[in-house]
Amino acid sequence: MLDKVEALSTEALMAEIGTRARAAGRVLANAPTKAKNNALMAMAKAVRAATPEILEGNAKDVEAMKANGQTAAFLDRGTLTEERVEAIAKALEDIVALDDPVGSVIAAWERPNGLKIERVRTPLGVIGVIYESRPNVTADAGALCLKAGNAVVLRGGSDTVNSNKAIHAAMQNGLSEAGLPEDAIQIVPVTDRAAVGEMLRGLNGNLDVIVPRGGRSLVERVQTEARVPVFAHLEGLVHIFVDKAADLEKAVSIVTNSKLRRTGICGALETLLVHKDVAESHLPAILDALNANDCEIRGDAEVQSIGSGVLEASEEDWSTEYLDKILSAMIVPDLDAAIAHIAKYGSNHTDCIITEDQAAADRFQAEVDSAIVLHNASTQFADGGEFGMGAEIGIATGRMHARGPVGVEQLTSFKYKVHGTGQIRP
Amino acid sequence: MLDKVEALSTEALMAEIGTRARAAGRVLANAPTKAKNNALMAMAKAVRAATPEILEGNAKDVEAMKANGQTAAFLDRGTLTEERVEAIAKALEDIVALDDPVGSVIAAWERPNGLKIERVRTPLGVIGVIYESRPNVTADAGALCLKAGNAVVLRGGSDTVNSNKAIHAAMQNGLSEAGLPEDAIQIVPVTDRAAVGEMLRGLNGNLDVIVPRGGRSLVERVQTEARVPVFAHLEGLVHIFVDKAADLEKAVSIVTNSKLRRTGICGALETLLVHKDVAESHLPAILDALNANDCEIRGDAEVQSIGSGVLEASEEDWSTEYLDKILSAMIVPDLDAAIAHIAKYGSNHTDCIITEDQAAADRFQAEVDSAIVLHNASTQFADGGEFGMGAEIGIATGRMHARGPVGVEQLTSFKYKVHGTGQIRP
Repeated sequence: MLDKVEALSTEALMAEIGTRARAAGRVLANAPTKAKNNALMAMAKAVRAATPEILEGNAKDVEAMKANGQTAAFLDRGTLTEERVEAIAKALEDIVALDDPVGSVIAAWERPNGLKIERVRTPLGVIGVIYESRPNVTADAGALCLKAGNAVVLRGGSDTVNSNKAIHAAMQNGLSEAGLPEDAIQIVPVTDRAAVGEMLRGLNGNLDVIVPRGGRSLVERVQTEARVPVFAHLEGLVHIFVDKAADLEKAVSIVTNSKLRRTGICGALETLLVHKDVAESHLPAILDALNANDCEIRGDAEVQSIGSGVLEASEEDWSTEYLDKILSAMIVPDLDAAIAHIAKYGSNHTDCIITEDQAAADRFQAEVDSAIVLHNASTQFADGGEFGMGAEIGIATGRMHARGPVGVEQLTSFKYKVHGTGQIRP
Repeated sequence: MLDKVEALSTEALMAEIGTRARAAGRVLANAPTKAKNNALMAMAKAVRAATPEILEGNAKDVEAMKANGQTAAFLDRGTLTEERVEAIAKALEDIVALDDPVGSVIAAWERPNGLKIERVRTPLGVIGVIYESRPNVTADAGALCLKAGNAVVLRGGSDTVNSNKAIHAAMQNGLSEAGLPEDAIQIVPVTDRAAVGEMLRGLNGNLDVIVPRGGRSLVERVQTEARVPVFAHLEGLVHIFVDKAADLEKAVSIVTNSKLRRTGICGALETLLVHKDVAESHLPAILDALNANDCEIRGDAEVQSIGSGVLEASEEDWSTEYLDKILSAMIVPDLDAAIAHIAKYGSNHTDCIITEDQAAADRFQAEVDSAIVLHNASTQFADGGEFGMGAEIGIATGRMHARGPVGVEQLTSFKYKVHGTGQIRP
């Protein structure tokens, strides 16, 4: 970490962080896989060894959060235990097992003139991660960026600044032990919003992309103000459409799992759309299964007329990500209406159709403009690990560069290598 | 084109263009390949039929350019002839032959739980193209965006506004004839800079990406002010490094071709770096070949001492894209110095090493951070057509999304389609 932080203005501090990140990024870009993996293993070891310091820092944070009257859910996300620190260390080790994307050949072809062209993965450069109060992101995001050959500037939520600093100090020990530059993973040591502003302006050209991880207001601020590319992770306003050709058993099981397995993740179901032809036959069983698990239902008039205890949905419900045991539900006249509803209210994250009609599934998967579009499977599979892509930094909802789960591969760019034998252009 | 343009403020006009583009983009995203190809053929036919109107519009533009005292090169780029209009029509037909990227499967795999995952190409949405006074870009850019399923908003240079409007009118006739929305390809009918400002602000969320094509000041304005992603096309400050293990004959032929085949394209060589060990043996023959073609050489002291008639290079020469029969040249002590020079002065576009030493080539191609890095081949191959990618909108020098030649495939995004049989997440 930078010395004499207090002596610098935020502007000067952030400029210095940017310069150091760029220099470290140049070293990392050409670092061999072995050095990066050694660093990850050393980081895991250092995190375990620093468990007392990390828990001590976290205790300060928890005390401050309580004094600030934070909610129980917020406190839970921000609290560390010995088990959670061990999970952080384990997650660092898991990234060792992922393939190193840098240098891998995405495509290769030969031209009639004998030129051999390869499209090869390269690091992106310097990545800025702005996240809210989850200390594990400090380790996860830092390690993923490192594996992809990028330097990273981490700016975590101010509520867990002491936890983040302690985790980060351990990670820098690991880097140093493996002979990689400590500046490869930097943390912004101050908590004022001006530091975020400097990141959004790109640290004098030393920041190549910003990844915001957090609630809607954070992501919107980043999208509005950023002068550098953003891998936006918007909320998951996830829909399931139960088509007229839906299998009843699949519908009950997939809807229940999508809503209730874990309600707090971005792939959790928020709005259920049911084809009018199966409203009478399918909806009661679905509602019963949800009710049996204490899930609140907010429905339109038709849903209310079918299910008992259904509350009235307001217009706002169709655009609300509850992240809780609440589901909005609506009867729609046909597939087109379902697609139109999702186009109007969805967040381009994850949506699903349940149907035995392949043509309906094909249309839904082609026309719904979301990063992940499922057919007959739980929306809770919207996850890099479940996709077989390993750890992820989040699910991107934009259409540029990275879309869907953002893992190590998505944290890279590419270049063309052209191999000739003296060719000149006629 | 919009009716009653004069009655609207620029802000209202651009907002309307954005709304129409988004609506047309939704139709295009699901338009079959056949409809898009029919439109391209109809557009080519309509351009040919409108040759008199296009030449009439162009004559007005040329008159105004002359009155404004534009340079001969500028006038040449902006002037149309019957042959050039025919070339524009032919280029539209050539895009028919390109594969439709939309819907193509980039990758597919199956998970242990039986889920089948596909990564499938989708359109980007609405693309804004801001370009300088080359009327053919109106047709090329419009057609490439169309083929990739995107709506496009074209804002050409004010010097060729009448030519652009005439070409655009013909293209809309073609769209209409093929049953596709005319708003799929719109042109900004006013020439004030405020219209560009509205595009840079993203037309109320209706513009997904901006492609600037033009000189440094245009691209820099777009990069600084844009609130939407940019596929930057910076200048090509192209280097060749003649390594100590370079073959003399290849060096002479590749350097000459790279500099002189066409001096005005972005892949043309601008700076020659020569390893000190072969300065005496290789440089004279290279300079002779360039001199024989009236190429001016600006060199450092060592180059001046070897070649006759070499002018003194100033610091500015190392960062100048001449696009002319001028070459800057420098002797460097080794491969590292060549890589460091390119990192300092290059534009991340295209660079080349000439060597028979595979290890030196490998290092150069890995460490030089440019979109295209060649070994023993002319830098004039930096072109989508030469790469076998078909027509291109330019060579992107950023690291996000599109890098190198931007053809139809690079004008797409992707989504994940997940095919299940009732899977739920444990």
